[in-house]
Amino acid sequence: MTKKYTVTPWEVSGEIDYAKLIREFGVKPLDDKIIARIEKHTKDLHYFLKRKIFFAHTYFDTILEQVEKGNKFYLYTGRAPSGPVHLGHLIPWMFCKWLQDKFNATLLFQIPDEEKFLFNENLTLEDTKKWADENILDIIAVGFDPKKTKIFLDTEYAKTMYKHACRVSKKITFSTVKTTFGFTDSFNLGQIFYTSMQSVPAFLPTILEGKTTYCLIPCAIDQQPHFFLTNDVAPKLGYPKTATILSRFLPGLQGMHQEGKMSSSVEQTTIWTTDTPEKVRNKIMKYAFSGGRETVEQHRKLGGNPDIDVSYQYLTYFLEDSNKLKQIYEDYKSGKMLTGELKEITIAVINKFLKEHQARREKAKNIVEKFMLRD
Amino acid sequence: MTKKYTVTPWEVSGEIDYAKLIREFGVKPLDDKIIARIEKHTKDLHYFLKRKIFFAHTYFDTILEQVEKGNKFYLYTGRAPSGPVHLGHLIPWMFCKWLQDKFNATLLFQIPDEEKFLFNENLTLEDTKKWADENILDIIAVGFDPKKTKIFLDTEYAKTMYKHACRVSKKITFSTVKTTFGFTDSFNLGQIFYTSMQSVPAFLPTILEGKTTYCLIPCAIDQQPHFFLTNDVAPKLGYPKTATILSRFLPGLQGMHQEGKMSSSVEQTTIWTTDTPEKVRNKIMKYAFSGGRETVEQHRKLGGNPDIDVSYQYLTYFLEDSNKLKQIYEDYKSGKMLTGELKEITIAVINKFLKEHQARREKAKNIVEKFMLRD
Repeated sequence: MTKKYTVTPWEVSGEIDYAKLIREFGVKPLDDKIIARIEKHTKDLHYFLKRKIFFAHTYFDTILEQVEKGNKFYLYTGRAPSGPVHLGHLIPWMFCKWLQDKFNATLLFQIPDEEKFLFNENLTLEDTKKWADENILDIIAVGFDPKKTKIFLDTEYAKTMYKHACRVSKKITFSTVKTTFGFTDSFNLGQIFYTSMQSVPAFLPTILEGKTTYCLIPCAIDQQPHFFLTNDVAPKLGYPKTATILSRFLPGLQGMHQEGKMSSSVEQTTIWTTDTPEKVRNKIMKYAFSGGRETVEQHRKLGGNPDIDVSYQYLTYFLEDSNKLKQIYEDYKSGKMLTGELKEITIAVINKFLKEHQARREKAKNIVEKFMLRD
Repeated sequence: MTKKYTVTPWEVSGEIDYAKLIREFGVKPLDDKIIARIEKHTKDLHYFLKRKIFFAHTYFDTILEQVEKGNKFYLYTGRAPSGPVHLGHLIPWMFCKWLQDKFNATLLFQIPDEEKFLFNENLTLEDTKKWADENILDIIAVGFDPKKTKIFLDTEYAKTMYKHACRVSKKITFSTVKTTFGFTDSFNLGQIFYTSMQSVPAFLPTILEGKTTYCLIPCAIDQQPHFFLTNDVAPKLGYPKTATILSRFLPGLQGMHQEGKMSSSVEQTTIWTTDTPEKVRNKIMKYAFSGGRETVEQHRKLGGNPDIDVSYQYLTYFLEDSNKLKQIYEDYKSGKMLTGELKEITIAVINKFLKEHQARREKAKNIVEKFMLRD
């Protein structure tokens, strides 16, 4: 029996069984107990937590311990720049912003431009630099505090990064990356080295400030294998283990069972942050996989299936109002709400979201330098 | 039948058959024809060339072609900082200086501090930095022109180096480094990536000046495997193939057949650039392998063997006067000169050399910054 899905930092495909993935990866579910412990500090809960869009973690309890001792922690996340930003990319960043606001946390935002260059035959470093510049506008548009957020490209911050990546790399053999990532002898030398660069920001404030500082990484679960290696190395270098808080993937418009997560390589079923309202409407109307029945009559009689309906799934990611969401769920399931009506709601929610995002993205152009970290 | 010697960038041992090594490596001998072609430009010849201490090359003819077209080339060599500098290290550098003077060539001097860190379990990056600072004094003491010489540590010049190393690394697979260097799956990620960093200076002036610039690397022959990879990659990135001019190894005091090249790991049979005249005397008197006979009577009657005598070998590296050297050879071979007398000559030659080197090394402390390249 072959596995029905693949989740690695370079490939996510198939219909993912998240409960199974938790066991396979050996991460922990974000259970009610730990969510209650978060709420004690944040007073309210982000709907990503309530809806288990962030659903798993490693060592998140050690971060809460630090908070409970009155210590600061910092956030680290990233974006590999191989194309424009789509809605799926924004999910961990939006959650990062919430954590930054709630915990007054500094954020290190890595742009591993060399990663995409090394893993994609057709990209040059000029291409990845161009996409990095574009992507940074989307990152800033999420609303991070410029006083507490540092964004850097690996190639522009390499004087700081490379030597610490060497320190990490000395503790990881090729055997280990073979096992962790499935690499073979025909991988290139940069691909093999790269995971060392992804580890460094997890240690950087401890290195630069000269005192132990805990790190929390909000990211999609495909990135977790890197941080297993980070945590193999951490104690050997005298650093605390890094914590991760892990999200599901936003499906592509055709649904997870058809095309996996929303993907930069599938133009027409992906909603980009720069899409016009008309484009969003057309894409959702044309491509969003529907949980509706074949005819209006059947739908009214038997009801739709919101659990497989992509428009509904998107509302779970972008509609904050949980009462409204619940009502939509019930109305669609009972057959009271038709697919067309559901799609209209989703189009309105996403276009409102994107209108605000695009306005902030435009303003971001004037404040990029406030965020950038370079050697 | 096992091979009697090993020559890799990380191990040189056994009694090397240089003629065989030329065939094995597929490099070319520096024959009389190419030496005559050098002399046409330089007017005189360095004794390292006359004595075949530099004995092989790759693509050196392309450098001469550039010279003959009136174009400049630049020099690149290096020093991995794992300990103090000994006499053997100076040989390629002395030859580099001669080439710099004769061809008015710019020299890029790489200090791959991360290499020694990655390949030596016991060294930290603080250790390699300390040795780099010491070694730079010896490099400057060789007498390079500060206006035409740039020295850099990989970790301090990584903003420039890393991104181009990534470009190189994308063209080299792990299979290739396995074959080239004999690496296995238990090598660490930094070791595997490192050769990419050693390639970069061969392309750097072409990159930074934006026009094709040829590179000549004077070095000991153990470094050649790196530059085979460099030249695999060069045409793929649109750069000219790099040329090398390759030296033999200065033997340790016990001779090549006993201990291979002079080595930083064998304290008592190695002459450091900072040794006092007394230390040099004691080491040569006590350890220098002799080609003499067992008794003075036998020596007078049968003569000594300068070809295996280490003191005599050292004179071929450090006594410029070829007539005097020839006389010593004949007198020792005939039995006219005893081992003690030969050793006295060698001690005097090396101590004179070191006295001058140490004076320049002391003055170097004030001009280090004139040479350094950092991001």
